Amino acid sequence: MNREQLFENIKRKQSFLCVGLDTDIKKIPQHLLQDDDPIFAFNKAIIDATADLCIAYKPNLAFYECMGVKGWVAFEKTVNYINDNYPDQLIIADAKRGDIGNTSAMYARCFFEEGRVDAVTVAPYMGEDSVKPFLGYEGKWVILLALTSNKGSHDFQLTTDTEGERLFEKVLRKSQEWADADQLMYVVGATQGKAFEDIRKIVPHHFLLVPGVGAQGGSLEEVCKYGMNSQCGLIVNSSRSIIYADNTPAFAEAARQASKDLQQQMAKQLLEIA
Amino acid sequence: MNREQLFENIKRKQSFLCVGLDTDIKKIPQHLLQDDDPIFAFNKAIIDATADLCIAYKPNLAFYECMGVKGWVAFEKTVNYINDNYPDQLIIADAKRGDIGNTSAMYARCFFEEGRVDAVTVAPYMGEDSVKPFLGYEGKWVILLALTSNKGSHDFQLTTDTEGERLFEKVLRKSQEWADADQLMYVVGATQGKAFEDIRKIVPHHFLLVPGVGAQGGSLEEVCKYGMNSQCGLIVNSSRSIIYADNTPAFAEAARQASKDLQQQMAKQLLEIA
Repeated sequence: MNREQLFENIKRKQSFLCVGLDTDIKKIPQHLLQDDDPIFAFNKAIIDATADLCIAYKPNLAFYECMGVKGWVAFEKTVNYINDNYPDQLIIADAKRGDIGNTSAMYARCFFEEGRVDAVTVAPYMGEDSVKPFLGYEGKWVILLALTSNKGSHDFQLTTDTEGERLFEKVLRKSQEWADADQLMYVVGATQGKAFEDIRKIVPHHFLLVPGVGAQGGSLEEVCKYGMNSQCGLIVNSSRSIIYADNTPAFAEAARQASKDLQQQMAKQLLEIA
Repeated sequence: MNREQLFENIKRKQSFLCVGLDTDIKKIPQHLLQDDDPIFAFNKAIIDATADLCIAYKPNLAFYECMGVKGWVAFEKTVNYINDNYPDQLIIADAKRGDIGNTSAMYARCFFEEGRVDAVTVAPYMGEDSVKPFLGYEGKWVILLALTSNKGSHDFQLTTDTEGERLFEKVLRKSQEWADADQLMYVVGATQGKAFEDIRKIVPHHFLLVPGVGAQGGSLEEVCKYGMNSQCGLIVNSSRSIIYADNTPAFAEAARQASKDLQQQMAKQLLEIA
């Protein structure tokens, strides 16, 4: 999926919501545990209930790996289900990978050739040759960690260097030598507030993947105020506050309602760039 | 496995070699492809041929994930095989994970509870709460990326901050607030030469996992000269130059010979601290 198609989807659906499929066997409704594949059964129900309200799904690999082989099967079934039934959805494998060149090339093959995802989150610590192998696939995206939503983001990402540049700013600037806004996005946490202004000075056109609205406490309004550009430029993720909105057999309907609430707030924000 | 046990193994085997199981279906000997599980068949042969010459195995997750469900099965079988037959081996899942707290906790559960590995490599970019969940397991290790072996290590890891500290040095210093040398190791590439001197000033007692000898061009002698401490303090990894030493049915014997060459060089270096 290219940048224009993504923006078309956002306008058509009046939504820039990404639903995070951080599916934890310990948190899903009890009655699903009788299913052959409870993780997939849960995901399928969530997807069917939310697909018209969001433009992306983001399964976090940790939650699937944790289940070993069964988890991997559930992940693949989930990705295939979205592709086969909702082909307009951007599928983001939230993997935060990054390794030496030949190993990153294996990860890229894993997600973009063997798998059917559209985007992978990548960690920048190891530099150019750890990121570049992910960039060789047309219509596929690298989403590079820049300024994350967690408290630990302060430990290294905000370190200022001798040029007066903070590490996350260096990541934004330097990575533009590797690819442009048609292949690269960045992770910026919703909890980072006004830092979005500084980020937009360096990457005015790029899409930002924004986790941290909901359970982590970020504000959608603030994110839009400082982070939105003329093509929206935002994919706002919510995981726990959607998929665990309810823990009864009515969980999918509750997830729909939580998504609908966010989508309606997003529609209002989109009026700003209409 | 604790630090003392690790050092005991090193002395007994006169080796601080880690064999990297970066097993690529496209590179293993043709005749193995007839096996039900060629990846595991290859690993098993390599392990049986090298176990008396090394003290650790390091499967890189990328190479298993790339195969989807089959790869995950091969990974689990490999880990179980090592545990059941060579319990004195340190098993390092080279995963380079790191995510917000609740997600890192899932990864930790994945490797240390569901899985049977002894150590996981972790990327530091997201800071304290992305690393800490891995530190809650007795006898298990976090191996944090510090100064990696690849060219891209120059992009961010060498950035000097306003305090005159380079990013990898900040990672070494700051992470010592989270755990000590009994739970933390660091990845330092063999290609980094004299930087080992600077690293030993900050972490004199920690074990360092050193990739980059062999195919990547690092020198074992230089690593030992600048990086060895009184308890060895080094686990030197070689992957490709051991496991792909030969591509015929004699591959395991060739892997043994390549391991033996390294082990003998290591035995000489260990005389320095005897």
